[in-house]
Amino acid sequence: MQKIYLAGPEVFLPNAEEIGETKKALCEKYGFTGIFPLDKTIAPQATPLDTALAISKGNELLVEKCDIVVANLTPFRGTSADAGTIYELGLGRGLRKKLAAYSNTTTPFLDRVWHQYGEGDLANAPKGEIRDKLDHKIEEFGLMDNLMLEGGIHIANGLFLTGDVDPSALYTDLTVFETLLSQLQKRYNA
Amino acid sequence: MQKIYLAGPEVFLPNAEEIGETKKALCEKYGFTGIFPLDKTIAPQATPLDTALAISKGNELLVEKCDIVVANLTPFRGTSADAGTIYELGLGRGLRKKLAAYSNTTTPFLDRVWHQYGEGDLANAPKGEIRDKLDHKIEEFGLMDNLMLEGGIHIANGLFLTGDVDPSALYTDLTVFETLLSQLQKRYNA
Repeated sequence: MQKIYLAGPEVFLPNAEEIGETKKALCEKYGFTGIFPLDKTIAPQATPLDTALAISKGNELLVEKCDIVVANLTPFRGTSADAGTIYELGLGRGLRKKLAAYSNTTTPFLDRVWHQYGEGDLANAPKGEIRDKLDHKIEEFGLMDNLMLEGGIHIANGLFLTGDVDPSALYTDLTVFETLLSQLQKRYNA
Repeated sequence: MQKIYLAGPEVFLPNAEEIGETKKALCEKYGFTGIFPLDKTIAPQATPLDTALAISKGNELLVEKCDIVVANLTPFRGTSADAGTIYELGLGRGLRKKLAAYSNTTTPFLDRVWHQYGEGDLANAPKGEIRDKLDHKIEEFGLMDNLMLEGGIHIANGLFLTGDVDPSALYTDLTVFETLLSQLQKRYNA
């Protein structure tokens, strides 16, 4: 069975282990072995820094041994996906892994950034030259996040799905994730 | 001369080209060839999506041909570094490039996240179990961003420097960047 590394912000949730097990069970249902970032044992280290580095190294090794990185790019604490998840997507791309991703929102990146960092009505902003309050350019490509993310998935011939879920279940709803798995099954396990 | 890919949020600044030229001149001063993300020609494409994908592919090729990725991890529109920059750092790691990074702030990730997403006084938050308003865990490792970023740089035996600059020059001050280049020169060009 092909191994999927489950990158995403779930590791920060109160029920991280539980949702990890649920995501792995869904992988199994579609013929894959899911690997959750917490699927490793980190021995206690002398300092917080050493612990962080041990976790990082452990995650890199998990990404290395997987066949596919499936990233949850749902925006996390801000307008973009979780920083660690983005790093792991790039890492997977550099390692020439298969890539796939999903987001539990269909609101475009431009709208999300404008909502937090724009001034006035987005409809009145000058097309092709849209800038935030600090005069920093905002991407206008109709994408769901910074173009390097969706671009990398595209270069890797990967899949990227989005869907809207109940806002209270933004990080726990697995409907879009399961749809993605079913498409990955058709592609890689048919 | 070794080639440095200059990852960072500068591409979104009003004077992107100018700061790109300045960063490249500094690279030259320390014996490196700087490659700025805008150092490529993207032919006009049929759709915004196609344009975005062409830019993404162009950037990936620039990262591939460099020897070192130097990432500006100064927080951009939120608590973490720019999403594209994080992706490129991960990409560089996956491609087994040399890595280096800097940030124009010394305020730790925990403090920055708490400032935007915490509730109450950080000093009173329960050590080892610090969570944001949504009950999502916040990393407590004393790092400058998500542990995968600093961890990846460390695994690659890279350098990471931070410094505080005038807040009005958060994205344009190149003091920390130049210090990093001088250390890279000693390491790779001595």
